[in-house]
Amino acid sequence: MSGNTFGTLFCVTSFGESHGAAIGCVVDGCPPGMALSTADIQRELDRRKPGTSRHVTQRRETDTVEILSGIFEGKTTGTPIALLIRNEDQRSKDYGNIAESFRPGHADYTYWQKYGIRDHRGGGRASARETAVRVAAGAIAKKWLNERYGVVIRGYLSQLGEIVVPFKNWDAVTSNPFFVADDSYVEQLEAYMDALRKSGDSIGAKLTVVAEHMPVGWGEPVYDRLDADIGYAMMSINAVKGVEIGAGFASVTQRGSEHGDEITPQGFLSNHAGGILGGISTGQDIVAHVAIKPTSSIRLPRRSINKAGEPTLVETHGRHDPCVGIRATPIAEAMLALVLIDHALRHRAQNADVVCTTPKVPGKID
Amino acid sequence: MSGNTFGTLFCVTSFGESHGAAIGCVVDGCPPGMALSTADIQRELDRRKPGTSRHVTQRRETDTVEILSGIFEGKTTGTPIALLIRNEDQRSKDYGNIAESFRPGHADYTYWQKYGIRDHRGGGRASARETAVRVAAGAIAKKWLNERYGVVIRGYLSQLGEIVVPFKNWDAVTSNPFFVADDSYVEQLEAYMDALRKSGDSIGAKLTVVAEHMPVGWGEPVYDRLDADIGYAMMSINAVKGVEIGAGFASVTQRGSEHGDEITPQGFLSNHAGGILGGISTGQDIVAHVAIKPTSSIRLPRRSINKAGEPTLVETHGRHDPCVGIRATPIAEAMLALVLIDHALRHRAQNADVVCTTPKVPGKID
Amino acid sequence: MSGNTFGTLFCVTSFGESHGAAIGCVVDGCPPGMALSTADIQRELDRRKPGTSRHVTQRRETDTVEILSGIFEGKTTGTPIALLIRNEDQRSKDYGNIAESFRPGHADYTYWQKYGIRDHRGGGRASARETAVRVAAGAIAKKWLNERYGVVIRGYLSQLGEIVVPFKNWDAVTSNPFFVADDSYVEQLEAYMDALRKSGDSIGAKLTVVAEHMPVGWGEPVYDRLDADIGYAMMSINAVKGVEIGAGFASVTQRGSEHGDEITPQGFLSNHAGGILGGISTGQDIVAHVAIKPTSSIRLPRRSINKAGEPTLVETHGRHDPCVGIRATPIAEAMLALVLIDHALRHRAQNADVVCTTPKVPGKID
Amino acid sequence: MSGNTFGTLFCVTSFGESHGAAIGCVVDGCPPGMALSTADIQRELDRRKPGTSRHVTQRRETDTVEILSGIFEGKTTGTPIALLIRNEDQRSKDYGNIAESFRPGHADYTYWQKYGIRDHRGGGRASARETAVRVAAGAIAKKWLNERYGVVIRGYLSQLGEIVVPFKNWDAVTSNPFFVADDSYVEQLEAYMDALRKSGDSIGAKLTVVAEHMPVGWGEPVYDRLDADIGYAMMSINAVKGVEIGAGFASVTQRGSEHGDEITPQGFLSNHAGGILGGISTGQDIVAHVAIKPTSSIRLPRRSINKAGEPTLVETHGRHDPCVGIRATPIAEAMLALVLIDHALRHRAQNADVVCTTPKVPGKID
Repeated sequence: MSGNTFGTLFCVTSFGESHGAAIGCVVDGCPPGMALSTADIQRELDRRKPGTSRHVTQRRETDTVEILSGIFEGKTTGTPIALLIRNEDQRSKDYGNIAESFRPGHADYTYWQKYGIRDHRGGGRASARETAVRVAAGAIAKKWLNERYGVVIRGYLSQLGEIVVPFKNWDAVTSNPFFVADDSYVEQLEAYMDALRKSGDSIGAKLTVVAEHMPVGWGEPVYDRLDADIGYAMMSINAVKGVEIGAGFASVTQRGSEHGDEITPQGFLSNHAGGILGGISTGQDIVAHVAIKPTSSIRLPRRSINKAGEPTLVETHGRHDPCVGIRATPIAEAMLALVLIDHALRHRAQNADVVCTTPKVPGKID
Repeated sequence: MSGNTFGTLFCVTSFGESHGAAIGCVVDGCPPGMALSTADIQRELDRRKPGTSRHVTQRRETDTVEILSGIFEGKTTGTPIALLIRNEDQRSKDYGNIAESFRPGHADYTYWQKYGIRDHRGGGRASARETAVRVAAGAIAKKWLNERYGVVIRGYLSQLGEIVVPFKNWDAVTSNPFFVADDSYVEQLEAYMDALRKSGDSIGAKLTVVAEHMPVGWGEPVYDRLDADIGYAMMSINAVKGVEIGAGFASVTQRGSEHGDEITPQGFLSNHAGGILGGISTGQDIVAHVAIKPTSSIRLPRRSINKAGEPTLVETHGRHDPCVGIRATPIAEAMLALVLIDHALRHRAQNADVVCTTPKVPGKID
Repeated sequence: MSGNTFGTLFCVTSFGESHGAAIGCVVDGCPPGMALSTADIQRELDRRKPGTSRHVTQRRETDTVEILSGIFEGKTTGTPIALLIRNEDQRSKDYGNIAESFRPGHADYTYWQKYGIRDHRGGGRASARETAVRVAAGAIAKKWLNERYGVVIRGYLSQLGEIVVPFKNWDAVTSNPFFVADDSYVEQLEAYMDALRKSGDSIGAKLTVVAEHMPVGWGEPVYDRLDADIGYAMMSINAVKGVEIGAGFASVTQRGSEHGDEITPQGFLSNHAGGILGGISTGQDIVAHVAIKPTSSIRLPRRSINKAGEPTLVETHGRHDPCVGIRATPIAEAMLALVLIDHALRHRAQNADVVCTTPKVPGKID
Repeated sequence: MSGNTFGTLFCVTSFGESHGAAIGCVVDGCPPGMALSTADIQRELDRRKPGTSRHVTQRRETDTVEILSGIFEGKTTGTPIALLIRNEDQRSKDYGNIAESFRPGHADYTYWQKYGIRDHRGGGRASARETAVRVAAGAIAKKWLNERYGVVIRGYLSQLGEIVVPFKNWDAVTSNPFFVADDSYVEQLEAYMDALRKSGDSIGAKLTVVAEHMPVGWGEPVYDRLDADIGYAMMSINAVKGVEIGAGFASVTQRGSEHGDEITPQGFLSNHAGGILGGISTGQDIVAHVAIKPTSSIRLPRRSINKAGEPTLVETHGRHDPCVGIRATPIAEAMLALVLIDHALRHRAQNADVVCTTPKVPGKID
């Protein structure tokens, strides 16, 4: 494969540049017979789209999705579902000075070296704009996982710079522009972001995504482990620099007697595993954490070189997210959904006939 | 794919259970004409093999590799290289009591639910024994990367439980049984491990792997990013719960003005990116960190259930590594090698004709 | 993979139904730096499009292609090239009666059984309309193969029903609506087709495709042989029931002393192999023959069943090609191009460093 | 993929050279819980093995298979099944003169050009010896298809040189060394082969393979059609030059009113489709025909070149099959089984929930 297709049985093939005619994807492998409308997809796209608050990029894109194929009389047919999102706001002049030099921390330099050509307008293919496509495809996966298996996938921003925001409740997440799970932090976050924007700098963030009501037994045991595929999926999101499953890096200092989740017929007693053992789902909630680096496109001047290899200073004045992590929650949810639907289908292929009389252990006892 | 093949163009298909007849793999896609002998592979296997110190499992396996195909007159032919390692020490009776119940924190429960059958002897396919195969295949990848492109791949144990061991020099790594990069910590680590073993418990660890002398331009930009594939590769190793590239989770609190590595004609001024931008290698060192959980097989009694779903207590008395992280350094190196050779080949396929006149920027200036 | 992507390194992912909003594809893996415009693609589409003579379907489609991504300043960037063709002429009422029953010899029945749902309008995804997408993608492959390696891919109709039309010259092929390589047969073919149309029946055909100026050494030796991939590619075209490479079924009665192409420094003495030995190109012309069945949608009444499983009679009155073979030549050429570019890229990946001092043997001496 | 793995969900990765240490494969994706012993596999291997009559190669190989993994207590576990066959009779001296020159019609020349190195002993990887591996893997697929879905896969030699042998009954096939379905031809065939052997020449053949008791609905509709995958599978067998499904090349002269198989509630009225419509199984028997070229290794002297590109004469005096088609029937059966099991698993993945109330139409009414 050439690197723009995600998945083995539920495959998403993505295309499009930030300032090209359109972005979109082909979703191949969706089972037939599921009701699907543009509204199902638009709802998720609206959660990610730019311009929804002053804390994110002010680029104006409605991100209106068109379904080109794969649906007949309101239902999936089992054939490829093509999704198209036309680009609308393409202020390419903002990028004129970037064409000849490379933003530190950005893919400008590596694209140029790899391809000998690059679409510098808005980062071209390297732009986070591509992630709209993932959210659209993920919406289909989420819907199917929920309708067929009852799986619920949600996420929240668990840290913005130095501000750790603990989980309080899911309702909060939908009621603030930061996707944090505790509304009482919103004022503090707004002040933080206002100061950051004024400074011309950017900041990193941390996300948490969760899949609830998981079946037991999804995942492959060696290379295509569920956690390996989640690692791949999350790390494939622009700006992600780290991934944890369950206890993650905290496992380093844990004893086995603490880390290993004890099992009782009434439920697991903890979930350090993050819902995955030996690459296969335990039936507990799947929990992953993702580290997102600060945006590389900032107003502050930075040392770099130009195409001739000569030293230069780069300042970026386009419309960028000062914290790309804020809009990344729906993206991480989408990627988790894409991993899970793929393993759901693989499980059916190989294990459809398995009879296991041991009852499924309930998730963590609260 | 069915989950036991790693790679796209350089493919490793692994087989074998901990206490079956043998483990091994087929390496498909190795370019022809490279000198290769069993010694090249055995050298790496010996770094990982059990029984080399009192701090690791006392299982006695020589891990002797046989090359079954793909070599003619001492050179690779471009056809599949099959590697075979016979299992020797299979004290299966140690596992009798595990057959009917599930070790907390182990794949016992998930295998049983997924397959309705499991080879309980030594964990079967879920055993870390499978990783010998990765080390063997990785030895081929390492050799080719080094001979063809000069890439050097090495790793070290950067933390064992609470003990952080900073990098001092590479020579140290080869002179102690812990793979730490500073010999002055060895005494402290030995005392720590002796106490741990006595307690019947286990502990987590953290590894760091590095690829030096990297070409610029390897990696795909969207899903099959170099970092996404490293995330997948590392997370596919038994017991890994977290992966970081470069600054990793430290990026969360970094400003863009700090994180983005500035570029000068003389070299990069830092390497927070860990050698990858936009999914493509920058030519700086690739740096990844890996969190490894404590072994789940411990002597201490733990609550669990049996096949009937009834409560039980599980104690494990087989020969297990109290810290699987100690022997994991060669495995993580191997996985990094497998990712890099795959992208080296993919780069040749698509970008063989690219001419880029911008000189490659040297790595970080020390 | 879910069956709508063709290729390993040069991947075409196709979407769209006959009477849906659009058809199209994403071409992933095209090397960067090649000049490409819509005209390059449109030229090939125009060769296949309906309504060009009275002997093919009278459906009116301009088959206008739009390039949505992957091109910057007139050149391929190495990122996915998305192609979109809007459907224009969708006289769905023609298909009303087909919705409830199954045309003998058509995919109606199998789609219904497989998916439990089907887009009956014009055959939906089973329609030969999907092949426009292949021609569009193939145009890119053809151009690259020609510009980079000098390979020329062409085809012709070698038999229509009982009328065998031997190869005379390539110029003839472009000057008649049948793609035959001898203009002197045109009158006979026109009369044959006029009578056929009048009868309400349809007829089969045979095509020949050729790749000239082939490099030696492309192809994988075991499963992904060049001939195996050509077999797969051709058999994936709607209505194809047979594929031959070189001597094909005539090999059955050949002696080894006749079949094996003798080699001289001046050139091969014959080409029974069709340019492939052991799955790898010999440098001779690649020659493949394809059998195409008669269209199943005919006016004559035929026995069938309806969705309830009850007997019924089916007559099809839409606008169908009485001989789908006539428009299939550009499709077969496209599929051959897609196979060859994939193997060209694979060859570069694995064998870029191979030095072979034996000179390439010229093709067949005329 | 690197060309030595067959299949998408049921994957066979093959290794080994004709005169290397061993041949074998890894079968990944076999569902768990099926009883499997070496006898199940050996039975099929014995049908293909050399030296069983004077009409095939006199090389002495017992082709004894060892199962290295994937079986526990007599049942498949769902993990990779590794199969090993040691090579025994390696009279490499027979091939001394071939090392420096290229047999006409053989892969010698193309391997050399592709890899710059080749294992000339017995054709190395290009030898038909590799097909033993396919038969072994196919035995597993056949067994599963039969036990789970009742599918029966069988084949026969339908033509040897000019002698067409029509199908009479399946019992005959197992009672003669030619795999013909009518014993009354055996004497004629023996005389034919004796004369051929004496002449030092070789001859082509034609096979027919059939899958009975097929479910309806297996196969993907566009690229990975069931017939496309059969085309690929058959063409990947050494020496195959042509493949037909159902009516095959006879379709060229058929009318639509003849070719399209009429449907009645009692059954189809014919099977020109060969059991596949639109790439999906109809539930009728799948029927494929395969053309096999004459062996290229013959005693008669032939013009060729040596490694220096100079003219030479080549005579081959090793132990070769004068008609490779004779032993190819079990191979073609195996490949059909591998295609079908793959699609069976894919069908379960995507279409497990499909409810279709239209009854399955019985196969052809005799």
